[in-house]
Amino acid sequence: MAKKNRELDLQAVNQARGLAIDQVQKANSGHPGAPLGATPMVYELWAEHMTFSPDWGKWPNRDRFILSAGHASAMLYSLSYLFGFDYTLDDLKNFRQLASRTPGHPDLDPARGVEMTTGPLGQGLATAVGMALGERHLASLFNTEEYPLFNHYTYVYAGDGCLMEGITSEASSLAGYLGLGHLIVLYDSNEITIDGRTSQAWRENVGERYEAYGWDYHLVKDGNDLDEIGKAIEKAKKVTDKPSLIEVKTKIGFASPLVDTSKSHGAPLGEENVKQTKEALGLDPDKHFFVSDEVLAYTRKLQDEGREKAKVWMKMAEAYIKEDTEKSRLLENYLDGTAPYLANVEGFLDYPEKADATRNLSNVFLNRWAEADPLLIGGSADLAGSNKTTLKNSGFINPEDFSGQNIHFGVREHAMGAIANGLTLSGLHSYCATFMVFSDYMRHTLRMAALMEIPTVFVYTHDSIGVGEDGETHQPVEHYAALRSIPRLNFWRPADAKELAAAYAAWDSSGPTVLSLTRQSLPVLENSTFEKASKGAYILEEANVENANPDLILMATGSEVGLALDVFKAFAAKSQSVRLVSMPCWEVFEEQDQAYKEEVLPKASSKRVSIEAGVAFGWERYVGLDGLSISLEDFGTSGPANEVFDYFGFTADKILARIEEEIL
Amino acid sequence: MAKKNRELDLQAVNQARGLAIDQVQKANSGHPGAPLGATPMVYELWAEHMTFSPDWGKWPNRDRFILSAGHASAMLYSLSYLFGFDYTLDDLKNFRQLASRTPGHPDLDPARGVEMTTGPLGQGLATAVGMALGERHLASLFNTEEYPLFNHYTYVYAGDGCLMEGITSEASSLAGYLGLGHLIVLYDSNEITIDGRTSQAWRENVGERYEAYGWDYHLVKDGNDLDEIGKAIEKAKKVTDKPSLIEVKTKIGFASPLVDTSKSHGAPLGEENVKQTKEALGLDPDKHFFVSDEVLAYTRKLQDEGREKAKVWMKMAEAYIKEDTEKSRLLENYLDGTAPYLANVEGFLDYPEKADATRNLSNVFLNRWAEADPLLIGGSADLAGSNKTTLKNSGFINPEDFSGQNIHFGVREHAMGAIANGLTLSGLHSYCATFMVFSDYMRHTLRMAALMEIPTVFVYTHDSIGVGEDGETHQPVEHYAALRSIPRLNFWRPADAKELAAAYAAWDSSGPTVLSLTRQSLPVLENSTFEKASKGAYILEEANVENANPDLILMATGSEVGLALDVFKAFAAKSQSVRLVSMPCWEVFEEQDQAYKEEVLPKASSKRVSIEAGVAFGWERYVGLDGLSISLEDFGTSGPANEVFDYFGFTADKILARIEEEIL
Repeated sequence: MAKKNRELDLQAVNQARGLAIDQVQKANSGHPGAPLGATPMVYELWAEHMTFSPDWGKWPNRDRFILSAGHASAMLYSLSYLFGFDYTLDDLKNFRQLASRTPGHPDLDPARGVEMTTGPLGQGLATAVGMALGERHLASLFNTEEYPLFNHYTYVYAGDGCLMEGITSEASSLAGYLGLGHLIVLYDSNEITIDGRTSQAWRENVGERYEAYGWDYHLVKDGNDLDEIGKAIEKAKKVTDKPSLIEVKTKIGFASPLVDTSKSHGAPLGEENVKQTKEALGLDPDKHFFVSDEVLAYTRKLQDEGREKAKVWMKMAEAYIKEDTEKSRLLENYLDGTAPYLANVEGFLDYPEKADATRNLSNVFLNRWAEADPLLIGGSADLAGSNKTTLKNSGFINPEDFSGQNIHFGVREHAMGAIANGLTLSGLHSYCATFMVFSDYMRHTLRMAALMEIPTVFVYTHDSIGVGEDGETHQPVEHYAALRSIPRLNFWRPADAKELAAAYAAWDSSGPTVLSLTRQSLPVLENSTFEKASKGAYILEEANVENANPDLILMATGSEVGLALDVFKAFAAKSQSVRLVSMPCWEVFEEQDQAYKEEVLPKASSKRVSIEAGVAFGWERYVGLDGLSISLEDFGTSGPANEVFDYFGFTADKILARIEEEIL
Repeated sequence: MAKKNRELDLQAVNQARGLAIDQVQKANSGHPGAPLGATPMVYELWAEHMTFSPDWGKWPNRDRFILSAGHASAMLYSLSYLFGFDYTLDDLKNFRQLASRTPGHPDLDPARGVEMTTGPLGQGLATAVGMALGERHLASLFNTEEYPLFNHYTYVYAGDGCLMEGITSEASSLAGYLGLGHLIVLYDSNEITIDGRTSQAWRENVGERYEAYGWDYHLVKDGNDLDEIGKAIEKAKKVTDKPSLIEVKTKIGFASPLVDTSKSHGAPLGEENVKQTKEALGLDPDKHFFVSDEVLAYTRKLQDEGREKAKVWMKMAEAYIKEDTEKSRLLENYLDGTAPYLANVEGFLDYPEKADATRNLSNVFLNRWAEADPLLIGGSADLAGSNKTTLKNSGFINPEDFSGQNIHFGVREHAMGAIANGLTLSGLHSYCATFMVFSDYMRHTLRMAALMEIPTVFVYTHDSIGVGEDGETHQPVEHYAALRSIPRLNFWRPADAKELAAAYAAWDSSGPTVLSLTRQSLPVLENSTFEKASKGAYILEEANVENANPDLILMATGSEVGLALDVFKAFAAKSQSVRLVSMPCWEVFEEQDQAYKEEVLPKASSKRVSIEAGVAFGWERYVGLDGLSISLEDFGTSGPANEVFDYFGFTADKILARIEEEIL
């Protein structure tokens, strides 16, 4: 650490506060309260206890800092500027403006110290648990006595709101179970949320709750006392078998006339209040976006040691690589961010040639992936046996051993999604799993992965009324539509092993992949291929088609492709001009060129039928105003799967009759 | 309570266990483990401590029992049969069969003792918090010294999985805050979840966690000891200022060869194991679905006192009604389940005639509703000030006073949705609110409301990129589509006060209502009406239209209707045959007759354009293959709202140009 100069530290803290409220005031929008209250703790953390390099934000062994309370973005940008990340004063002046580097809530940008996109409360802390777990796993994967490559800490800044969210409870419980000693949460305990005092809705003992989770707990009574904050952090760092929660009592809107009220939370203070705040902080009220040369010279050097350590680390990594072991090559890949293209992995495309549930086939591909890629890690929210996600040749992560590639997430879907995202952000290749109907419980983590365009894989099995007896509570109906509606996300509903292989092979394209898999067995499709499926949609069968424009087009996905094939065959036998299109991934199909799309679904063919055991919502894109959707417009019901399919009209005979009556 | 006969109690418990495993075995599907382990605690609760009437399941002051671990449905049906609810042995034999009364997970049916649909873990406990809060609120609303109408308890059966879910943490925290003393949770602590021992992913101290929330905690070491269970329940009942958690140690799959393993959780035991289990329980292994006459005669009388109390209660209610006070009339309405038709409430339809944000207008209507309806209750997840949900003439619920109609839910979206559902199930009229983007956090509670077809109102403000500076994390884009995809749910995106009034007036139709409201101001539409809006979609404007078939149809919702109006006017000025259709609620529009739908959107008019600041997904239903959607196919961005709209092409000029280029 740099030599302490408490006088300059305090000046820096107050100038950072000034920068933060100036950003908000100039934007006439934003959150001044948290920066005024919390800048001391974050400053002290960055200045004296964290190790990172502002010149090499992506240094793999940097200490992580997650602004879980993402609305405190003005504080993050101010401190990032002071510490020498690539921000200018003009960036701060453009706070919350279109196309600025300083959006209202931070956007993922590790090069500039933004480890993840935050704003939705709780996501930050929960994702940080994934990063802290990632660090332990990478350590177990790479570290040797000579080369301790991974040993960083993960720090989180969280507010009262973060700690009220269920996702945080789930993630904290798992972090406590795992004893993630390198995870330290600074809890900005100001007892104010947007609607007022937390005592209006909250009176739990947070410290005791965290101790019940198995955490280490510290209290700092004065959030302006840098020394006390520093002592608590040092104590927390020494507890290496438990995560630590440091509750720091602060005043929201400190030094402003709106101190300790929710009025300082989410709106500019106003010019006059900004003035008075600056005066109270010992700043010149007439200066805006002011940092003294002396402070800047000082703060820009605070991480010189971090810069140096990053360079030393790189030399260590190079030496590790020079040893030319299998691990050396893996480290190279890790540092380059290169992942195996699964379709090129030997044996990956040897399709199991028998009727099977896609959840079982998924297990085959996952295991092939794991064999080719030691960076793969994942698991299920207590449904590993049902989701078929266990990697056979690896153990389960546990508090004594982080080398396993399997994770028991427990019954914690929301946290699971965030933790999987955190593992992905750690450079690992991560997947997670539950029943599709419970994708609802973790929906916002899908959105976060999509926003950040990170390739977490979400494995959702039991994907339709094929669930059968468990009934309407467990049968997804609206979920295909709801998942397809999320931008930057690929939703795959494969019909057989070849389509599923295409889905897995596409996992690292960009953004998250969602797999929709069956519990029940599906037939092998004779005419599907990996290559065709890789285009998202393709002609599976056709009969009696002249001029490339069939009179009737059937479209289906997943478990309904086999059913559609029976319908197709019946029409073909009747000399009907008919085509069957399998559409495992709409998003990938939409990326194909216009000629291919027209080839598969020619505009001239307007008699179109979709067959999918879910709501028709969205299918109109392909079916058109004159088409027909064989769909489910209500929730499912409990019964043996084949009877339930029959009940809702999903048999070849019933579909054939409807098409003949309503379309032909 | 009936006179205790422990010998018969034990026989009843074991015969109930036998019924449960017979159900699962005959269905060849289901969950035998929980019934075998937990039947004693639930039996003891029902037999000795709860008060209800199997003849009048809907008795308003009955003690509630929520099977939060809904997979234990076979236990619920067995006990319901024994206690005399309207189930036959044939119902039990039809367990999990199509169209049976005994689906895999329980479906809402209070007449037969099923207080809510359960299965998705945590929903039950969280919804029960709403019921317990509902009881307190109803008591404060109706009770007098002479007429203590509402004073029931709410009991929950929950498993390890329920207690791992974040929704449970949120709800338990709020229950602890509120000191809901009539809420008692029986925690079936068997240390097994689907993937095996809970110790694989969980080692927190649940009792201490609940004490940190402000709960009362008890431990029962032997889940087969009816007396110990009974003593704990009695102690918990006496603690009236805190909710109680009773941890009951059990063995999953008790008495079966698969005892204490996850193998007994979710699959039939197998014929041979069923036999051995029955032998261990002292039952005849060759008898199936067996209940002795003696046991049945005994258990059918266990709630005779409950039956009597229900009758006495009804007399009290009748006397209360006879007093002919305002409260008398309210009680009548409450008992009949009649709610005011808001459009008929005096003054309700006096539309505020100025440009305003729909969130502000919503506050006006909510307050008018509250004035007409003392049963209205609701609030926001710490965004009351932003969501504009506060009822001005009422206070906030707090631990000392449950009479307020306002609730501070805290930053607990998922629990909020469930608690609002619980309030609705209590016969209250309930709403809840957050930013639309965070509807993701509570998505499954929307599904639960839809499944149960209960009219909870979900108020989602800040419904588009109009959020502006808060940026992509706070700007919903995919949410309209995702919400519209849920069956049995009405999604309203009103463009002005008249459309919003239509949305509110339709709230009690059936199933939940979702309101999508703006942060920013919207213009008053000259030609909208309440009546037209009540049809879900209607012709707002048209020009130069001959034969009722316009050449061009513009469609828009909510904040984009004003924009579409500008586009419409520009086309009208160019003598273009054009119509503008406002579509505040697709689901209600779809319910109109074919003639009306054809009148609004004639098939002959194929040049159709939708204008909505979200993904186009789903709009193809109205736009068709040849239409155009002015939409947002990616996430938003941070900046002043008008600049963000402009950036994404949402200006009249840009839209006009695209329509002329791409459609006309």
